[in-house]
Amino acid sequence: MGQRILVLGGDGYLGWPTAMAFSRSGHRVAVVDNFAKRQWELELGVRPLFHIPTLHERVRAWREVTENDIELFVGDLTDYAFVESIIDGFRPDTVVHYGEQPSAPYSMIDVHHATYTQSNNVVGNLNVLFAIRDRSPETHLVKLGTMGEYGTPDIDIEEGYLSVNHKGRSHTFLYPKTPGSMYHLSKVHDSHNIHFATRIWGLRATDLNQGVVYGIENDESGTALNRFCVQAAIGYPLSVYGKGGQTRGYLNIRDTIQCVALAAANPADGGELRVFNQFTEQFSVIELAERVKAAGEHLGWKVSIAHTDNPRKELEEHYYNAQHSKLIELGLEPRLLSEELIDTMLTRIARQRDRIDPATFVQNVRWAPEPRAGIGTSAGAQRR
Amino acid sequence: MGQRILVLGGDGYLGWPTAMAFSRSGHRVAVVDNFAKRQWELELGVRPLFHIPTLHERVRAWREVTENDIELFVGDLTDYAFVESIIDGFRPDTVVHYGEQPSAPYSMIDVHHATYTQSNNVVGNLNVLFAIRDRSPETHLVKLGTMGEYGTPDIDIEEGYLSVNHKGRSHTFLYPKTPGSMYHLSKVHDSHNIHFATRIWGLRATDLNQGVVYGIENDESGTALNRFCVQAAIGYPLSVYGKGGQTRGYLNIRDTIQCVALAAANPADGGELRVFNQFTEQFSVIELAERVKAAGEHLGWKVSIAHTDNPRKELEEHYYNAQHSKLIELGLEPRLLSEELIDTMLTRIARQRDRIDPATFVQNVRWAPEPRAGIGTSAGAQRR
Repeated sequence: MGQRILVLGGDGYLGWPTAMAFSRSGHRVAVVDNFAKRQWELELGVRPLFHIPTLHERVRAWREVTENDIELFVGDLTDYAFVESIIDGFRPDTVVHYGEQPSAPYSMIDVHHATYTQSNNVVGNLNVLFAIRDRSPETHLVKLGTMGEYGTPDIDIEEGYLSVNHKGRSHTFLYPKTPGSMYHLSKVHDSHNIHFATRIWGLRATDLNQGVVYGIENDESGTALNRFCVQAAIGYPLSVYGKGGQTRGYLNIRDTIQCVALAAANPADGGELRVFNQFTEQFSVIELAERVKAAGEHLGWKVSIAHTDNPRKELEEHYYNAQHSKLIELGLEPRLLSEELIDTMLTRIARQRDRIDPATFVQNVRWAPEPRAGIGTSAGAQRR
Repeated sequence: MGQRILVLGGDGYLGWPTAMAFSRSGHRVAVVDNFAKRQWELELGVRPLFHIPTLHERVRAWREVTENDIELFVGDLTDYAFVESIIDGFRPDTVVHYGEQPSAPYSMIDVHHATYTQSNNVVGNLNVLFAIRDRSPETHLVKLGTMGEYGTPDIDIEEGYLSVNHKGRSHTFLYPKTPGSMYHLSKVHDSHNIHFATRIWGLRATDLNQGVVYGIENDESGTALNRFCVQAAIGYPLSVYGKGGQTRGYLNIRDTIQCVALAAANPADGGELRVFNQFTEQFSVIELAERVKAAGEHLGWKVSIAHTDNPRKELEEHYYNAQHSKLIELGLEPRLLSEELIDTMLTRIARQRDRIDPATFVQNVRWAPEPRAGIGTSAGAQRR
């Protein structure tokens, strides 16, 4: 009685583990990718810490090991004919949509990377919505968003909606968002478009506002916990941007897979945009640095913390309290961040020491241009 | 002492009157257009009720009559090099940005018109923001939005921001919006991007959430008051969509020009996104139909009202109370809708009777696909 699951962005660090997990559970799975992420890595001269086989190799290996087929479609979500042919041909019960440009610093490099990120993500997502509407209207869209869409408001971050009492009347709004990068803005645009598709066309959708993902499968060296582990492993100071009071929601990559599976198994109703805040714990950056420092020192390493200039424009001390109960109610069993887990990450990363390039620790993309002597002398955000 | 004013979308029904008004007042004015609107009209086989000379002809005539030059730049706002060269060369004090695809029905034709509208509007607006940031950071952006971005919430629509008290704490958000078409969504995306540019880069911007514009210079036969006048002039029933309880803010096209001039003369501060709700009166659709009927009957015409199927998905009875005091505080003197004004519109439109094509009264673009016998038999929204 498995579902038909279509994973968009199936070559990614979350997409492929998700595809394997659904396949392992007996669902029929197809993956879509255009390998854009591998191009962005080539453009910036970076590579994942762990070697990643091609998607064709992964699909072949999966068949050999499990005797399960994962179907593979190569193409671009901004090509409507491609998207429509897959939705029409595969008729998924659930579309898990990871297929977007996912890097905030990449989106902030310059105007071209900003407009590329927004048009790529918005147009791809619209194509998916229209193809579902016209070819498979019962399909449940599970869309990956991010907690970063909310920003850091002075009131609690509720799960997706906010009921407002105002001048003796009340109304429930999609929770208003104050995103902090061109990438995060693209996700806010997506959420408004998905809300429209559920309200006006009656589609069913779940928006997963995911926290910062950590775990050794995670190749995003830009996120704080992973970067600290990598820095500790080669004896570099852990670089905390500014004061380090920036607080966010975090989750283990294994919980991402669990959350997506729970959302697929419990679909939204027709006409409903359901929103989950998908994280398990809140940490400030400095707390994370201190936990990595402590774990490294228990392994006998020497670990220091350095406060560096913050390339982002963000509050470094702020109120932060985000609700995250709906996935727990569906049965999520969180794997909380333990010293044991940090130990494991440090030990496994240490084995890859010779693949670590300290140059990638330097974040050269700045959120706003440097102050200038005269107008016209700066090219704005810098490229590495 | 005049400003340097750059009008984007200067060939449009608001852009050109705006350019003339600033030029008449002694400002140095330049206009930008790629004539996309004239292409959209050809695509749909419609034409404005009044003949519109080319922009080159208008600029020449303006010079002959007033001895004032209006500079003309022909190009596409989605081309960053073009946008940057104009901002860098003209160094405007104020950019008035009308240069977007402005039709909700056009944006709802199909997936291609939806993605075109969103990427065209969002990318063009981002290019303007980046060019101002990098080439002329003191420039004040006056951006045309629409009251339609808000939707019809059950609480008052405030001017741009909403202060929320929640669990003993409070926060002021950009007013959360629930837009009703792919076009309106594109404007919401723009507003989030502009908010980011003011918060993170310190730009100065004013977002004008404009009501429905009426007036004989207005070639948008799709908006209710103008359509009713045209229908009355040729003896057609005034077609009210559904019950006609849809209430919106309206303003005279001359007040649009006045509001834009007030915004330019009183620029936003650096780092500020100022939001004005730019309309002067609220009407329901049925009220407007009844006022046109009364005015037509005073001219001795026979006028009837017909309730037709609503092609849009929207509430036909709802709470609506939108604030609009900030432009009044700056000195706006509203020209309210009078029977005299409707008389004038009817009389002038009647002189163009032979240019009126009743086929254009039929709105064939539907907001949601018709119910279907089987999946895959409908192409979704219909084209005329």
